[in-house]
Amino acid sequence: MRFLSFHCDYFRYSTTKRSRSRVFEELTEKNKEGSLENLIVFFISIEKQDETDDQIFQKCIIEIEKITTQLKVKNIVLLSFAHLFGELSSPEFGLSALKEIENLLNKKKYEILRPPFGWFNELELKAKGHPLSRISRKIN
Amino acid sequence: MRFLSFHCDYFRYSTTKRSRSRVFEELTEKNKEGSLENLIVFFISIEKQDETDDQIFQKCIIEIEKITTQLKVKNIVLLSFAHLFGELSSPEFGLSALKEIENLLNKKKYEILRPPFGWFNELELKAKGHPLSRISRKIN
Repeated sequence: MRFLSFHCDYFRYSTTKRSRSRVFEELTEKNKEGSLENLIVFFISIEKQDETDDQIFQKCIIEIEKITTQLKVKNIVLLSFAHLFGELSSPEFGLSALKEIENLLNKKKYEILRPPFGWFNELELKAKGHPLSRISRKIN
Repeated sequence: MRFLSFHCDYFRYSTTKRSRSRVFEELTEKNKEGSLENLIVFFISIEKQDETDDQIFQKCIIEIEKITTQLKVKNIVLLSFAHLFGELSSPEFGLSALKEIENLLNKKKYEILRPPFGWFNELELKAKGHPLSRISRKIN
């Protein structure tokens, strides 16, 4: 797993059309667009090697908590993102992994926004400009 | 070299403070903030291996031209970006490489915005949601 995080004043998304993925979530009134303020957006790639790593979700939550604790932020966007130069997992595993991360973070009282899997999105954001405003992590 | 590109309706930046890089450009009225509309922002990492690659700039320009031609965009943001999971070049080479890419693109009649090297920035953008709106490339 790897992610790129942007600490933002605001983030908004709006779904546009189906991506090439054979796996996708149905659009609803609730998930087709959304926004958060004072948040960290995690652009996440779920990778091939994650499929056989029993500890991957635990390790992912630890890394996310380190960053959110340091920045004192409880609002998170989890955005599936294929463009981080890793070898991607199957889309089925990718979607289930993102749901699992969302569930684990929900239990820790984060406010989560997760744009639906398998769709292109318009994204609008304002990213802060401090030393930890952009971070990348490989988790394995 | 590797980059991540976002095709955007608009992009604005404003420098905040010095990064940890020992190499930096002086701030001026002209470069301390800027904006463009209908543009592609290239988040670029200049890598160690680029330092010994005679063809790297030529290959970079070819990749950038492929994308800008396909999307019919002549406005470009060149943003030095360390968080793409590559092994970075020296900052001296990194800055000279970004300047060289800017020069080569200027000769091809692109409108270029290049935030100053060695500074953190606030970034505000609206990224489009079509199939080529986000692209990543490794060039080597």
